[in-house]
Amino acid sequence: MTYRDRLQHATSTLGHVCVGLDPVPAKLPPHLRDAPVGVALFLVDIIRATAPYAAAYKPNVAFFEALGPMGDKALETAIAAVREHAPDAVLIGDAKRGDIGSTAERYAVALFDRWGFDAATVNPYFGTDGVKPFVERPDRGAILLAATSNPSAVEVQRAWEGVALPNVIAKLARDQWNEHHNVALVVGATRIEDMASVRADCGDIPWLIPGIGAQGGDLEASLRYGVGASGIPSLVNASRSVLYASSGEDFAEAAAAEAKRMQEAISSARATLANAG
Amino acid sequence: MTYRDRLQHATSTLGHVCVGLDPVPAKLPPHLRDAPVGVALFLVDIIRATAPYAAAYKPNVAFFEALGPMGDKALETAIAAVREHAPDAVLIGDAKRGDIGSTAERYAVALFDRWGFDAATVNPYFGTDGVKPFVERPDRGAILLAATSNPSAVEVQRAWEGVALPNVIAKLARDQWNEHHNVALVVGATRIEDMASVRADCGDIPWLIPGIGAQGGDLEASLRYGVGASGIPSLVNASRSVLYASSGEDFAEAAAAEAKRMQEAISSARATLANAG
Repeated sequence: MTYRDRLQHATSTLGHVCVGLDPVPAKLPPHLRDAPVGVALFLVDIIRATAPYAAAYKPNVAFFEALGPMGDKALETAIAAVREHAPDAVLIGDAKRGDIGSTAERYAVALFDRWGFDAATVNPYFGTDGVKPFVERPDRGAILLAATSNPSAVEVQRAWEGVALPNVIAKLARDQWNEHHNVALVVGATRIEDMASVRADCGDIPWLIPGIGAQGGDLEASLRYGVGASGIPSLVNASRSVLYASSGEDFAEAAAAEAKRMQEAISSARATLANAG
Repeated sequence: MTYRDRLQHATSTLGHVCVGLDPVPAKLPPHLRDAPVGVALFLVDIIRATAPYAAAYKPNVAFFEALGPMGDKALETAIAAVREHAPDAVLIGDAKRGDIGSTAERYAVALFDRWGFDAATVNPYFGTDGVKPFVERPDRGAILLAATSNPSAVEVQRAWEGVALPNVIAKLARDQWNEHHNVALVVGATRIEDMASVRADCGDIPWLIPGIGAQGGDLEASLRYGVGASGIPSLVNASRSVLYASSGEDFAEAAAAEAKRMQEAISSARATLANAG
């Protein structure tokens, strides 16, 4: 059965209500609040009682993650309860994941295969690369953030008048979110055309710079705008190039050599920039 | 120690390399590939070997989540190994979370308290509400997506010329991502001013509509654009209003009554719309 058929069947027989499962232990009825499995028992009863009226259930993954291993167990129980008591309902993993393609693919595996959700909520900030792993399976669905319901959504989602999104974020970060000097920005080493303007708009906020290794970004430009002459504490990320520098038993030595090489390349590029400046 | 001091100390003593931890069992050296704790052993060796060259470690949470409970254990082990072998390095939870305020707060608890990360990557799509729980603790940092490194990033992040972001997403969903008819859009019941244009741009793609209960959205407008006369299989979400309809032992009956009330309210509003149309 395709996801679309499943959804259509659910809404035509059960209506349009989706019950969101956002468990907060302190809000449970007193007799369940202190039980180690209180959240699980609470959700099973909620699901059993609401099954005739719900076309979908939507566990909000954040509320389970925050509870640690006990939350993981409760999520497992809630999913099993939906399958048992509400077999026609659509089961949505509300996780709002979004990342570059290879990472989004891992999130799709976690949500669709580990947990077995029929659909997942997805953050489309990365464009097609990040959305594709969630939409390429006909039996699974993707629910993309478009116009979210929270009060501050419009700060980002309607700020399109002549300003690129990275600059919208840069200015909000500088002017509103950096009171504790604990904010950084992800600026990819492949996004050379955005670097000067993002730096101009974000003040001295540090960057986390991915895209140097496998993705072929520009280290020199990244350092010029990311670290600069004043030594902003930005970070240049390397994942696969370090982890898989060797596939043999010498993998750790090879990883160390590659990390050392990068550390030195950055140091020497910074010296060149300092001399040129 | 504040997060900023920790980061500054790390980069000034260790340089600017951040080692991303994205474990894929199939890519491990053969002698670790089939061991149940192979991922954990691999990461401990990587961390020990690269510690002199890394200012930060960045476990990519997706790669651990996809491995199930074994992945959770490996993440725990990797975090402990960073604290032991690289005590001056910053530990970044690369999870790219982002949601409305009350949910973002749960993600901050999961990343900062459950896992103990010093900083987390955050998706700023929700604006201030979603960013705030990650920036309000001086000892913890937030790394916000601005210009991401992947090829399709610009589809969304530079599509600001005269088009609002929800409409950018709506058109991409309709034209490029919906081959299997398994895509839906989150359109909040509070976003009345965006509804007509998003519906015009997304064809008959279903919506998931939050914001009716606690957030005070408009059910009638949501149904007009979300479901319409043709009965698009959209879903109207209710979380707190159902789960916490009663705080007593009758919580399940109260939840059922509230879900039933919503089911009927939607059905009756649809009948009114059909008659008016």
